Amino acid sequence: TFAWAGKYHENMNSRETLFTELGVLAERPPEIPASYKDSQFVFLANTHPGVQLQMLEGLPRRRLTVADTMDLWINVARAELDVLLTKVDGLVLNYDEAELLTGKSNTVAAARQVLKMGPKFVVVKKGEHGCILVHRDGIAALPAYPTELVVDPTGAGDSFAGGMMGHLASHPLHKSGGIVSFQAFGEALAHGTVVASFNIESFSLERLSSLKRAELDKRYAEFVGMVRV
Amino acid sequence: TFAWAGKYHENMNSRETLFTELGVLAERPPEIPASYKDSQFVFLANTHPGVQLQMLEGLPRRRLTVADTMDLWINVARAELDVLLTKVDGLVLNYDEAELLTGKSNTVAAARQVLKMGPKFVVVKKGEHGCILVHRDGIAALPAYPTELVVDPTGAGDSFAGGMMGHLASHPLHKSGGIVSFQAFGEALAHGTVVASFNIESFSLERLSSLKRAELDKRYAEFVGMVRV
Repeated sequence: TFAWAGKYHENMNSRETLFTELGVLAERPPEIPASYKDSQFVFLANTHPGVQLQMLEGLPRRRLTVADTMDLWINVARAELDVLLTKVDGLVLNYDEAELLTGKSNTVAAARQVLKMGPKFVVVKKGEHGCILVHRDGIAALPAYPTELVVDPTGAGDSFAGGMMGHLASHPLHKSGGIVSFQAFGEALAHGTVVASFNIESFSLERLSSLKRAELDKRYAEFVGMVRV
Repeated sequence: TFAWAGKYHENMNSRETLFTELGVLAERPPEIPASYKDSQFVFLANTHPGVQLQMLEGLPRRRLTVADTMDLWINVARAELDVLLTKVDGLVLNYDEAELLTGKSNTVAAARQVLKMGPKFVVVKKGEHGCILVHRDGIAALPAYPTELVVDPTGAGDSFAGGMMGHLASHPLHKSGGIVSFQAFGEALAHGTVVASFNIESFSLERLSSLKRAELDKRYAEFVGMVRV
């Protein structure tokens, strides 16, 4: 019910939207399958913030909620996006979208501004240049996994978020005062980075669908070695 | 004897050269002061590669030599630059210049190509997006220090290189087979990153000239906390 097509620029850290088909706006929002209704870890992938809000209401057992968004919704559904931001724990978005949302071109300044809109943490994605986390209790930054093997960067952001959420869900959340602790994020961001690095090695979900845990762990260890200081 | 003026683009990871005054080409290269002639750690800052080659010959006790270069020399003095690359241990350059030098837009691929030209390691600088080291024995990557305090990015690259060289010079080089070990670089890149983060907080050398070792160490520890995985 939602079609989006885009192309990444050569340098992989900006995206040009070619067209967006908003089937979802003309239809009912997707039904949450019964087996998903007790989900505790919720990632609201990029769609209309009004739909994201409805999905959220159907998940009463949520403990950690993170949303993604994009330039289109910032431009055409800002009011609903503003409401959404008061209801999620975290926001994940591209660095140019962080600037569009806040008017601030400095990534750290933009992310701090987003914190004032509701979320307790913001992950700014910068494609081949990695990511920056701005959390109420601190800042973290990681490069992307340095690789020559880039077939298709489509889905890098969602697979990054998936890897991050999966890691947070598989470990104690270290939640205090309603917020996932800053300390819990270091490994989670690195896991997201490594999952994304596999995703871009092939089209669609080809690479992820055949990915073994041992391959993931091996590259994770390699990545840790690359960013050690 | 060499004047260069440029401006950094808003996003700080590209530079536009406004004009370059090549006094150095019309004059004799600068004299190396007598007290510098026994230098073991040599950083050849960005100037004409012919001049860099002459400087090198005046420093017979060099143990580690790293050069910087820029788009201008890649375009107008390629032959001399190619000779220089066979005589230095390492090259430091911006990511768009790595592409210009090699024809490869992927940073890792470009750096690997540079290794074939002579250097044993290449540090690709990406401004606000950090750096990537491609060394014969491995790859390392670091984000820049995430900061809102950017007054003037001029000199970020040179202060980065200075911090890196200073750290390598102050510690055992771990040199084996004529190459600084990959292991020696992790901390050195992080030191360069932190020194550069101070430099951009003010114009010219204002901030560095008043910088205390304790401030450097404090931010270094903070930076290590930010990139820990």
